[in-house]
Amino acid sequence: MRSEPDRLRFEIEARDGAARCGVLHTAHGPIETPAFIPLATKGSVRGLDGDEVAGLGYQLILGNTYHLFVSPGPERIAAAGGLHGFMGWERALITDSGGFQVFSLAHGGVANEVKGSGRSGGEHGSEVEITEEGARFRSYRDGSELFISPEVSMRVQAALGSDIALVFDECTPFHADREYTARSTERTHRWLDRCLDWHRDEGPERQAVFGIVQGGVHEDLRRESAQRVSEAPVDGLAIGGTLGRDKEEMHDVLALTAPLLPEAAPVHLLGIGEVDDLLGGIALGLDVFDCAVPTRLARHGVALAPDPDKRWRLDLRKSGWVGNREPLVDGCPCPACQRHDRDYISYLSRAEELTAVRLIVLHNLTYMHELTTHARAAIKAGTFDTYRATVLAGASPWDASTSTS
Amino acid sequence: MRSEPDRLRFEIEARDGAARCGVLHTAHGPIETPAFIPLATKGSVRGLDGDEVAGLGYQLILGNTYHLFVSPGPERIAAAGGLHGFMGWERALITDSGGFQVFSLAHGGVANEVKGSGRSGGEHGSEVEITEEGARFRSYRDGSELFISPEVSMRVQAALGSDIALVFDECTPFHADREYTARSTERTHRWLDRCLDWHRDEGPERQAVFGIVQGGVHEDLRRESAQRVSEAPVDGLAIGGTLGRDKEEMHDVLALTAPLLPEAAPVHLLGIGEVDDLLGGIALGLDVFDCAVPTRLARHGVALAPDPDKRWRLDLRKSGWVGNREPLVDGCPCPACQRHDRDYISYLSRAEELTAVRLIVLHNLTYMHELTTHARAAIKAGTFDTYRATVLAGASPWDASTSTS
Repeated sequence: MRSEPDRLRFEIEARDGAARCGVLHTAHGPIETPAFIPLATKGSVRGLDGDEVAGLGYQLILGNTYHLFVSPGPERIAAAGGLHGFMGWERALITDSGGFQVFSLAHGGVANEVKGSGRSGGEHGSEVEITEEGARFRSYRDGSELFISPEVSMRVQAALGSDIALVFDECTPFHADREYTARSTERTHRWLDRCLDWHRDEGPERQAVFGIVQGGVHEDLRRESAQRVSEAPVDGLAIGGTLGRDKEEMHDVLALTAPLLPEAAPVHLLGIGEVDDLLGGIALGLDVFDCAVPTRLARHGVALAPDPDKRWRLDLRKSGWVGNREPLVDGCPCPACQRHDRDYISYLSRAEELTAVRLIVLHNLTYMHELTTHARAAIKAGTFDTYRATVLAGASPWDASTSTS
Repeated sequence: MRSEPDRLRFEIEARDGAARCGVLHTAHGPIETPAFIPLATKGSVRGLDGDEVAGLGYQLILGNTYHLFVSPGPERIAAAGGLHGFMGWERALITDSGGFQVFSLAHGGVANEVKGSGRSGGEHGSEVEITEEGARFRSYRDGSELFISPEVSMRVQAALGSDIALVFDECTPFHADREYTARSTERTHRWLDRCLDWHRDEGPERQAVFGIVQGGVHEDLRRESAQRVSEAPVDGLAIGGTLGRDKEEMHDVLALTAPLLPEAAPVHLLGIGEVDDLLGGIALGLDVFDCAVPTRLARHGVALAPDPDKRWRLDLRKSGWVGNREPLVDGCPCPACQRHDRDYISYLSRAEELTAVRLIVLHNLTYMHELTTHARAAIKAGTFDTYRATVLAGASPWDASTSTS
């Protein structure tokens, strides 16, 4: 950790067990934590304009370095005043390093495997060549050869002008063996140094950098990585890589890793955002969480709802909603629930109307924001455990909050 | 025309030559005319929620009887309190009769032909059987046989609960010969009577009914149809059917037809909404205009802009927009133009991001609303001819309005 937090200041406001809430002060305003981070993968949050995302209460969104590198390219975004100017977003931005997507191609379906679905892959493995220098791959757009190294990733993120950049790492999949994971983690540490060196010499002064703790499911590797990253001059930490084959193993890996990180550091859990996982992360003291699920589900007509048995999913494309006059979730303050019923939204979704995607995105992002906002309040009130248990038992975040306080 | 306008009152506020502006009072509020009517074909305006459409200033939208008949069906919509309740739209609604879509299937591409593109078709002709009773066709959803007659159309529209229903007519295509058009127009008149009879006995009391003037490009048939429909107990009139092979012929057909209609009747020009055509219609005293073009263009990355040589189209999927910091249209009050530049919106559109469709829909509907709002002001000021000429010369509606007043 850097000792002089001039680029990013993390103020911890309250603690409740290991859980904590605070404010992350960035060059583009504060982020109240714990926070969920919506994805603006290619420069927009699915179907929404930036002012709407801010209107939902979000203070931080995540841009995807890999996709924005491929198109429209860092030069074009830099010319627009960075990603903030390009997309007209005035609040804070974090960018990933591009590593996740590149190595997802390399390892074949890592996006699924890392999150524990266990799907094996590899058919695209030959399309990416990983060396000590970096990763060489073909553009999905035009087949041209592209190369990302630690330096390239940091240069692209500098051009994007995000408030928080993530170092370039290899995201190891679940099916990688210990030997591969160990070597990969070592390389990720060398890449960490290269990222920080580049950033120190050429990075934007007000851009913070988060290091990424790897090590797969192996305790010794996670320990080693946590120590290595914590000792580096980073402004915060992220937990990446595979977290195991199921939720139990994920919990074990996180429970092992979280206490190894510097107390004062803001911690980002990468790519995790299911309701129970997010609450589990908060309980361990993690601060920010990004995940594609809430926005991706909307495209498939799935709304978030307080139903643990169905993984908090309400499938509006299923039959059974005809004539149903309930909102997606009772008491939800989102525009979809305030104005429409399941009958209409399920019809629109099955008819593949764009408006359905938009309404469900608004709902799902509201749901996630409510989840973290009420978690924050519960931490302040010292009732987080009860809040979490109540949500896990099937209460909505707002009901859980009321019954807890 | 009905002499007792209890279901719909049309108040003409000012005239400027043949052009006029007024207020159409419906059961769900007033519509200031001349007005453009956005399509909510399947129960939503592309990508927007109802409150946003109202926020753009629209007081009337059009639901599509054919599509809503096929899915979700009139029973489901009636159970939700009609189309207003189903989609959560509190302002006025007009529904077409379903005829246009049915006969589009029958005649093969009538949607294009009627509007003068002259594309021939007919491969689907066998799928629709037209008899004196009505039209039998197969559902595009599940292949089941469906039947629409004048009575069925009115019954469906009654279930939808629109403020204005349109009578069931055969929309003759451009390639139909005089003989066919004459016979079809006669049948349309018999269908008109059947629609009005059904509606008198079983229609919702507060639903107004517009008759449709057919007759193709044939002067005598248009005259006969105009007289026949004007004499019927309708609450307003619509001009339907083919208007010829090009804009010149369209103008001739409209210039012939418009003066034949009762002075006091609100008149709807069906399916026409290009900037110049709409202004031409207003000049002839027509009042409301629906058209799929503004919302459909958005899907293809095309924004409306003051460029007569390009038919008021700004193609954002073309190259050449990289680094362009202009809004879609200078001075446009829409959210897209207020917040974003062509560089960003063109990137989003080429990347097929949903947000692009949404931003361009917001822009295009704002553009159409501005066009009619400023036309209305010009009519009141007695400067409509100048306003129209200025827009046709390439000014934006707001600039034309300023330079005219």
